[in-house]
Amino acid sequence: MNSDDLALALRLADAAGAAIRPLFRGQWTEERKADRSFVTEADRAAEAAMRALIESHAPSDGIIGEEYGTRNEGAGRQWVLDPIDGTTSFMAGRPIFGTLIALLQDGWPVLGVIDQPIAGERWVGRIGEGTTFNGKPVRTRPCRELSDAVLGTTTPHQFAGNDVDAFMGVAKAVAERKIIYGGDCYNYGLVASGHVDLVIEANLKLHDFAALVPVVEGAGGTMSDWQGNPLDAQSDGRVIALGDPARLDDVLEAMG
Amino acid sequence: MNSDDLALALRLADAAGAAIRPLFRGQWTEERKADRSFVTEADRAAEAAMRALIESHAPSDGIIGEEYGTRNEGAGRQWVLDPIDGTTSFMAGRPIFGTLIALLQDGWPVLGVIDQPIAGERWVGRIGEGTTFNGKPVRTRPCRELSDAVLGTTTPHQFAGNDVDAFMGVAKAVAERKIIYGGDCYNYGLVASGHVDLVIEANLKLHDFAALVPVVEGAGGTMSDWQGNPLDAQSDGRVIALGDPARLDDVLEAMG
Repeated sequence: MNSDDLALALRLADAAGAAIRPLFRGQWTEERKADRSFVTEADRAAEAAMRALIESHAPSDGIIGEEYGTRNEGAGRQWVLDPIDGTTSFMAGRPIFGTLIALLQDGWPVLGVIDQPIAGERWVGRIGEGTTFNGKPVRTRPCRELSDAVLGTTTPHQFAGNDVDAFMGVAKAVAERKIIYGGDCYNYGLVASGHVDLVIEANLKLHDFAALVPVVEGAGGTMSDWQGNPLDAQSDGRVIALGDPARLDDVLEAMG
Repeated sequence: MNSDDLALALRLADAAGAAIRPLFRGQWTEERKADRSFVTEADRAAEAAMRALIESHAPSDGIIGEEYGTRNEGAGRQWVLDPIDGTTSFMAGRPIFGTLIALLQDGWPVLGVIDQPIAGERWVGRIGEGTTFNGKPVRTRPCRELSDAVLGTTTPHQFAGNDVDAFMGVAKAVAERKIIYGGDCYNYGLVASGHVDLVIEANLKLHDFAALVPVVEGAGGTMSDWQGNPLDAQSDGRVIALGDPARLDDVLEAMG
């Protein structure tokens, strides 16, 4: 990773935002994908704009995109793109979705961007360089007790079987009325900025979580799977994001 | 209701926003109330600012405020104030909470404001006058089939006992991945603007729903309790907001 990588990542986010903004609360068509999730013209236009920039400026880099698949499979450097994380929020006119851009080096996310193009909010994380929000450094906040934590998760329907019990174990450990639902990637940005303490999710794909890791960890937090292991391309999609790494054992214990 | 009422309502919203904005993502203290919900300095400052304006400009009007209680009980005209609907979202740094202002005439809401002071988004509804979003008229959208609807609700934890089954009946009737969680009053504004079709909630208090009625109904939608009856000060806090009134029977049927 070098400064050119950062510059390219920011250009990608700009291009995605330019594609998304005119369609927000406007006219677009939707389609249901094989995994039952929705895709809109905005998702497709934003990913196409980002892929065109990578193909032109870094043609040997790999691309793993939510909507248009893989290019240069096996490349040491891979851009992982989720043009709209939170398509349902986009469809509902809520400005708490985001464009996710990650650069993987040999499978590990080293750079991540969460961009909210309507509110004009952008988190950028780089391993070893810290995390910024709209250009200014941000840090996660301390959390002395799990019972003080603000917990975020997008939807209860993402949890099935034993995952329900694991999530509810944590939900019961945090204070009543301190759980926020909805939000997708936006909640992870708020962890990095020190407004939310904890996010627990399941069924995420690589394009959903790769960009979040450098953002949360660059700000002093930690991300792991539900066993506390670091996330990589082989992770099972169960994710913990925690602002104060000192609480990880408490979270794992509450999950049972 | 007259044009002075509208002018006063807009001044109240301005004053609440001015009190809230400096505290958003800033330093504030929180406290837990008897009903287990949280209140922050921002809630208190915003309600105090609004009450001062009413006491000065309409001293004989009644006030029913979430934080500071009732003034001039039994007055024919009553202002119902919720300084921050969605305090947990405010605490988490999410710009999808809102200030709610309603004017009740003999117990019926005739004017409602939903104001989001961070995004600068304001819905104003008046019975007989229509609903505006940032000054421009808005309308709800048609919904041909319940299975096409985007359904919003703030948190699954608001439903207990049989209410869970009623909500899940509707959740199963709408398309998978078309349910948005979180959002509080903001979701009702999105119904008025035609981006969300349906909101179902329970355990709302008068200050949570009074302002929503003129906003949703002024835009062509309907609000009712879970039996389909109009909402008034005696309602039990179970609420349906529906953009296309033609779907009300389908919703009631899905609730079982």
